[in-house]
Amino acid sequence: MSLEVSETIADLRAHVAAARSRGLSIALVPTMGALHEGHGRLMERARLEAGLVIVTVFVNPIQFNEAADYSKYPRSLDADLLFCAARGVDLVFAPAIEEMYPRRQHTFVEVGPVADPMEGRFRPGHFRGVATVVAKLFNIVQPDRAYFGEKDAQQLAVIRRMAEDLNFPVTIVEVPTVRESSGLAMSSRNRLLTSQQRGAAGALHEALLAAAHLVSLGESSAAAVKQRGEAVLGRYPEIRPEYFEIVDPADMQPVETIAGPVRIACAAWVGSTRLIDNVLATPAGRQ
Amino acid sequence: MSLEVSETIADLRAHVAAARSRGLSIALVPTMGALHEGHGRLMERARLEAGLVIVTVFVNPIQFNEAADYSKYPRSLDADLLFCAARGVDLVFAPAIEEMYPRRQHTFVEVGPVADPMEGRFRPGHFRGVATVVAKLFNIVQPDRAYFGEKDAQQLAVIRRMAEDLNFPVTIVEVPTVRESSGLAMSSRNRLLTSQQRGAAGALHEALLAAAHLVSLGESSAAAVKQRGEAVLGRYPEIRPEYFEIVDPADMQPVETIAGPVRIACAAWVGSTRLIDNVLATPAGRQ
Repeated sequence: MSLEVSETIADLRAHVAAARSRGLSIALVPTMGALHEGHGRLMERARLEAGLVIVTVFVNPIQFNEAADYSKYPRSLDADLLFCAARGVDLVFAPAIEEMYPRRQHTFVEVGPVADPMEGRFRPGHFRGVATVVAKLFNIVQPDRAYFGEKDAQQLAVIRRMAEDLNFPVTIVEVPTVRESSGLAMSSRNRLLTSQQRGAAGALHEALLAAAHLVSLGESSAAAVKQRGEAVLGRYPEIRPEYFEIVDPADMQPVETIAGPVRIACAAWVGSTRLIDNVLATPAGRQ
Repeated sequence: MSLEVSETIADLRAHVAAARSRGLSIALVPTMGALHEGHGRLMERARLEAGLVIVTVFVNPIQFNEAADYSKYPRSLDADLLFCAARGVDLVFAPAIEEMYPRRQHTFVEVGPVADPMEGRFRPGHFRGVATVVAKLFNIVQPDRAYFGEKDAQQLAVIRRMAEDLNFPVTIVEVPTVRESSGLAMSSRNRLLTSQQRGAAGALHEALLAAAHLVSLGESSAAAVKQRGEAVLGRYPEIRPEYFEIVDPADMQPVETIAGPVRIACAAWVGSTRLIDNVLATPAGRQ
């Protein structure tokens, strides 16, 4: 089956209905395009698990808290379509803004405490925009399974909570982060880095690994673990850290004492590009 | 087919999936029970238009802004089941609170300006609770059509806006208000009225009709129309009016100059019971 492209909700729904009538299960991989190997893994996993694989490519304006960030976000639809075709995707949904937001959006999905720290603190309104567009996509596609990357761990936690609280009949699938050889997590925003900045950007993963190592050795003080990570970032003058947090993996609330698995997450600016990354860390004897 | 009763989401979904596999369309009639002829009309309309008719009976705690109102809200499940059976309903979904809210609800659907005036103003948080539970029920049942009464006109406008903004694949059907011979709109809350109060409660409809009559004669000043309605209510010492508004029928915003159809809506207390009602009014020559 060759790649189909839908630009309208009606056309997409007709494809989904036809697949349903053939008994196929539906997988949704929501993206903002500028596809990379991280997205590729989501598609491969979806291809294994569903009859019809739908990738959405839509740079969602309501999740950007800064207009400049929205306008400079990388866009490459033609390359994205080739990328999807090569991964065996069945259908790309690439709507115009007017198709998704035919009039001013009044209804928003607010997800509560899981959206408050970290990205929620530094990007006010971001998760409200994410939850709202994902709710829309769930209702447009009505997938059985939806695939999200571990790199955006808080986004994943937000979407899981939304899906449970609102009873969306969809299984949320988490797919591990894909990294470059430097450790840099794959991200569409990496395209905005100079080659020098790209070299320095590996520091985020280095700092996360150093912190996670301390946890694995049995350090139970989140403050000590945080200090260790921040010290690594401090060695790189090109990096301006925004946060470095040790949080509960389910509800994303900062912990003080580490007594089980924790998510270690950070955000940092490299030049005018903001990057995020995270790892899961488990105390000694808890694996 | 005799009436089935589901108390769990899993059981309900199994019934819906079986009906879908037989090619049946699905109708949802969401109620809080204490069923009356107004609900009956919703069911009859649904019966005409769908293959499987599902009535939900759930007194939704998160839409009550006052604990006392929630605790005294009428409940009569056994009678409600007989009522549904007599109307040819296929399935009643009557979940316990723990089934709908297994943990503290963190995710809420906020609908914006349409929810602000009238009920939104006097019952803070009410429409957030309504929109959230209706979103949950839409995701649990995945109906083709959902039926709501015109008596709760602002609720209908809120749900229409939510369904459009979030792309719920459901047709919202509005069913006209059913009235007693006194003009009193049927409502579960009428059960809380003494017979004397019930007599006085017809004043709401009398006031709405007087105001609508003025509109039909060509009065274009909303203030004059409002004054006319309030004057009627003022004749009844048992009635304590809360609001009397002339609003746009789609977005529920108060109008100053009447130049097309308007919704005239009011809320009033009769003893310790709060009643609402509304009519659509059309200026002369606009029918």
